[in-house]
Amino acid sequence: MALNAAQKLIKDHLVSGEMVPGEEIGLKIDQTLTQDATGTLVMLELEAMELERAKTEVSAQYVDHNLIQEDYKNPDDHLFLESATRRFGLYFSRPGNGVSHPVHMQRLAKPGKTLLGSDSHTCANGCMGMLAMGAGGIDVAMAIAGEPFYVKMPKIWGVKLTGELPDWVSAKDVILEMLRRHDVKGGVGKIIEYYGPGVEKLSAMDRHVIANMGAELGATGTVFPSDNEIKRFLKSQGREDDWTELKADDGATYDIDEELNLSELVPLIAKPSSPGNVVPVKDLAGTPIYQSYIGSSANPGYRDFAVAAEIVKDKHIAPGVSLDINPTSRQLLTDLVKEMHIASLVQSGARLHQAGCNGCIGMGQAPATGRNSLRTTPRNFPGRSGTKEDSVFLCSPETAAASALKGEITDPSTLEMSYPKVREPKHPTVDENLLEKPLPYEEAKHVTLEKGPNIASIPKMDEMPDELEVPVLLKMGDNISTDEILAGGARVLPYRSNLPEISKFSFEIVDDTYYDRAQQVVNKGGHAIVAGFNYGQGSSREHAALAPRYLGLRLALVKDFARIHWQNLVNFGVLPVTFVNEADYDLIEQGAILQVSGLRDKIMQGNQFELQVKGSKHHITVAHALSERQKEIMLKGGIINWVKSRQ
Amino acid sequence: MALNAAQKLIKDHLVSGEMVPGEEIGLKIDQTLTQDATGTLVMLELEAMELERAKTEVSAQYVDHNLIQEDYKNPDDHLFLESATRRFGLYFSRPGNGVSHPVHMQRLAKPGKTLLGSDSHTCANGCMGMLAMGAGGIDVAMAIAGEPFYVKMPKIWGVKLTGELPDWVSAKDVILEMLRRHDVKGGVGKIIEYYGPGVEKLSAMDRHVIANMGAELGATGTVFPSDNEIKRFLKSQGREDDWTELKADDGATYDIDEELNLSELVPLIAKPSSPGNVVPVKDLAGTPIYQSYIGSSANPGYRDFAVAAEIVKDKHIAPGVSLDINPTSRQLLTDLVKEMHIASLVQSGARLHQAGCNGCIGMGQAPATGRNSLRTTPRNFPGRSGTKEDSVFLCSPETAAASALKGEITDPSTLEMSYPKVREPKHPTVDENLLEKPLPYEEAKHVTLEKGPNIASIPKMDEMPDELEVPVLLKMGDNISTDEILAGGARVLPYRSNLPEISKFSFEIVDDTYYDRAQQVVNKGGHAIVAGFNYGQGSSREHAALAPRYLGLRLALVKDFARIHWQNLVNFGVLPVTFVNEADYDLIEQGAILQVSGLRDKIMQGNQFELQVKGSKHHITVAHALSERQKEIMLKGGIINWVKSRQ
Repeated sequence: MALNAAQKLIKDHLVSGEMVPGEEIGLKIDQTLTQDATGTLVMLELEAMELERAKTEVSAQYVDHNLIQEDYKNPDDHLFLESATRRFGLYFSRPGNGVSHPVHMQRLAKPGKTLLGSDSHTCANGCMGMLAMGAGGIDVAMAIAGEPFYVKMPKIWGVKLTGELPDWVSAKDVILEMLRRHDVKGGVGKIIEYYGPGVEKLSAMDRHVIANMGAELGATGTVFPSDNEIKRFLKSQGREDDWTELKADDGATYDIDEELNLSELVPLIAKPSSPGNVVPVKDLAGTPIYQSYIGSSANPGYRDFAVAAEIVKDKHIAPGVSLDINPTSRQLLTDLVKEMHIASLVQSGARLHQAGCNGCIGMGQAPATGRNSLRTTPRNFPGRSGTKEDSVFLCSPETAAASALKGEITDPSTLEMSYPKVREPKHPTVDENLLEKPLPYEEAKHVTLEKGPNIASIPKMDEMPDELEVPVLLKMGDNISTDEILAGGARVLPYRSNLPEISKFSFEIVDDTYYDRAQQVVNKGGHAIVAGFNYGQGSSREHAALAPRYLGLRLALVKDFARIHWQNLVNFGVLPVTFVNEADYDLIEQGAILQVSGLRDKIMQGNQFELQVKGSKHHITVAHALSERQKEIMLKGGIINWVKSRQ
Repeated sequence: MALNAAQKLIKDHLVSGEMVPGEEIGLKIDQTLTQDATGTLVMLELEAMELERAKTEVSAQYVDHNLIQEDYKNPDDHLFLESATRRFGLYFSRPGNGVSHPVHMQRLAKPGKTLLGSDSHTCANGCMGMLAMGAGGIDVAMAIAGEPFYVKMPKIWGVKLTGELPDWVSAKDVILEMLRRHDVKGGVGKIIEYYGPGVEKLSAMDRHVIANMGAELGATGTVFPSDNEIKRFLKSQGREDDWTELKADDGATYDIDEELNLSELVPLIAKPSSPGNVVPVKDLAGTPIYQSYIGSSANPGYRDFAVAAEIVKDKHIAPGVSLDINPTSRQLLTDLVKEMHIASLVQSGARLHQAGCNGCIGMGQAPATGRNSLRTTPRNFPGRSGTKEDSVFLCSPETAAASALKGEITDPSTLEMSYPKVREPKHPTVDENLLEKPLPYEEAKHVTLEKGPNIASIPKMDEMPDELEVPVLLKMGDNISTDEILAGGARVLPYRSNLPEISKFSFEIVDDTYYDRAQQVVNKGGHAIVAGFNYGQGSSREHAALAPRYLGLRLALVKDFARIHWQNLVNFGVLPVTFVNEADYDLIEQGAILQVSGLRDKIMQGNQFELQVKGSKHHITVAHALSERQKEIMLKGGIINWVKSRQ
């Protein structure tokens, strides 16, 4: 049977399930990527799993998110991450090397491989003929430990590219056109595969731009073929041997078919506050701007900066405009310096920042109140810039540079100049040494993890006991969100690597006596919580399961669960059960004690059992939805123990 | 009579007093400099004074301190400052142009002139044959409004430089040697004048390094002659016409004499946590480092970065070291890019930050816990880096670069290479346009100040009434600090441009009911406070006087005042009086009401008067120490009203 490129990648890595859209499949993971904001917890999970050494072909830890060091916490995290990579046999990319996605593409990406990353834009490396997907931290930790990644088999959505980009239109406009057509949920449950004659007109880095913002379409992944352009790119990086071809078979078909003619595109822009609010730039021409921001994994290429530099060269940006240049990798910065593009930008009035994610993830460069910010970044969700009620527009580097010159939103094709055709340097700067290589195991096994005062190991957690007798410490209503279970924000987030500290914030918004009451019974068998419908909605943060578990939560009994929080409870060994009769919710008061005996057998042997309310006649029938694998995880006390038992 | 250079500068600007050390003199101010951290209040003061236009020859506002934009507050400040410079006829240096002191030197400094700045390192421009001094914000606002600056006539301390710097020793080692000899109070009440044959061996920027850290010696100022080197520097900046000669007359003498032989110097380093803890670098060789930081007004020159670049060129810095490069001006960054020095630094593993003060003032780049940080900055006071109990060492760029390569403190003369002799580019990049020039008055007078939601005008304050009847809202003991009057820190400082908001923190630490109680009587004649000895010790922050004044404080009755807070009370129209009989302190309870009639005449006609304690027989004799000028200020209700009345 003729397969498309995405199907080939899946088939080559399939370890369980059927390739039928919607069915769960297990995939072997060849490479992983973590960044510092999510990576500290991943490394602590590897430590708790007692992992001896990464089992992937390539795992790389990048430091690109928390580069602003206002106190000891971020630099301590950097040193911890470096020590963890040395201990577990990972690559380490030091602060200043740049954003994970382009650096991974330059140094480690390999056609035909799978890549799982604890960053939602991991999909960017789909440009290299890889199956690259974002996931939660624990999923990536599991992959590093050699476990498969489980996902529902996506539909494959073929997008045939025809034609060629006109002057002043670039790759960013391609993905903005996709968002204009399909909005931010158009890609859910799908892999987008680009093919057709238009593909060969796009450079590897152009494809990165398009694949990166597949995340904004909600797609599981984006796949480009691995063709001669990818071969050329790898050769320029001194890695020609890493190239293999990947393309759809003749006669391959797609679950969904679409065509996009590059020749018909115009400069596009996404208005606040969604990447899906796309209109032609000319519709907004004349709107005053405060900021023009160039950088991020959504426009990381040499050409993205060079074309902006050529546009502002020998001119001055408008007064009152902040033109923020955020190089995306050390290699690219070096080449942009050598080719005098950085000089052009700085002389025009730009501010040159260190290589990294920076303002794209709200680390500095926030816009002023009520002013408009143009960015080449992938997202403009409300407040993401750091300024509440921000007004952020997403566009190409051409549009950003033209607008910086004029001080207002400007269609770059209206500039009185010819389109600067930028060529990548034939021999780009390559330096492998600044990505530290995995230590040999004999050396690695002696490395100690460097933990600053704010980094704490994840304590050992016990197995699921056979008998539970647990008080209901909280009885809550419907729609309790993970923000209520464990808040985010600047007060709480600095403790993301410190479970004992962050757990103090658990349920604080619901009932600030919870922590103290949980502490009283944590060594006496723990506790339960009861809630209504849609329990655990909102953010996917894993700490909302891990922190209450650390405080002794064994059982969450609710009317129903939000999907991701349910998954997180399972992963961290909290038994999630639902009322078989919803009316039973009324029979349990806060403070009631729930009892069950022979629990381990009951979990394994069915999907329903009874809970006794101590001192009453009430027997509550509850149900769980655990798969066979998840039952094992639950008995072990969570996925960390489960993986540890399999080493 | 033969005069030295410092005396010539003073004589040329003397408007009152005698040039006798210790006597108060008034000096005409030709130029001012403000930075963004202090500048917002200065601009609000100009607004409150209803200033029509700056009366100085040159006043420049720089944005170099608060460059990290985590939310709207800093960018709003930047836009406010830009609008204020347009309104009042100042130069504006946009974010990204660099640190005030080197940029002022490049574009505006002029031999023979006086410069007053609201930044303690304003003294750096003494390198240009100027009398350059740091001062409080209100002093600078007064100078912009055309008022003289009052200071005690300093002693002039002549330092004769002989010999020539050896290889691997640079200007930073000269000022570190001065600190080694005299420690951080050695310069108090003095102007340091460098002269002699060694001076001509030092470039203008080398002299900047030495003059800048006169602040760390506690000196009132540092003066270098304006000679052919200064002429060369100005010519390279396209400003040859701004040059005039300044040198000591033949036979001039100094109040203090010293000699320093440059040939005898070795690489020096200041240990934590004082710039005065100076030892030879070789004494600390081998100490491991985490960070090497290059930049700041204490090493701002082209050569300071270029020599570091030559040292690390074609090599890699040690793993685990953060080499942080902080360019000091847009011009220098451009030249460092063009001459490939930035490429050398980035390729070696450095992190390149935007041009500005950055980590030098604790805005990012904090070191990790318990790790050593080497910096070319001027200060290593405890916690200044952002990390409590930090371990910061001050050194030359040569020492910083050599240590980054080795991963440990390294005497650069022990490197196996010859000393890189760096030459400044013959034609450095000059671009006047990025420093916005003052608008013509006809245009300026129509400019509106741009105030974000966190910027509030200083409200009008009334004159001193003739009759006071004020309750004592607080009775405090000895040694109340300005931190207790109005705290600093991250909770309070963001409101420095918002008097109504920051005033809510007044005396919060002493008694958190103060604000509410003051509000109750603010429109009924205000209130008084009573305290013991050394009232207002500590930080010089002006808000500690301004905020209580805004809440209605009219009278501060204490046993004695700390000097700077007393000055601030006078400036903002709070009458500072002391007990003539200290035992009377016991006669006044918190809540007592103090009365006085005919107060205006009593202030003008003597320095003592009586307060009646309402409903008692007690008459308290109090004294004030106001000069004639200060009496006028007091009657007007503070210096802002006083200046306004003189426009």
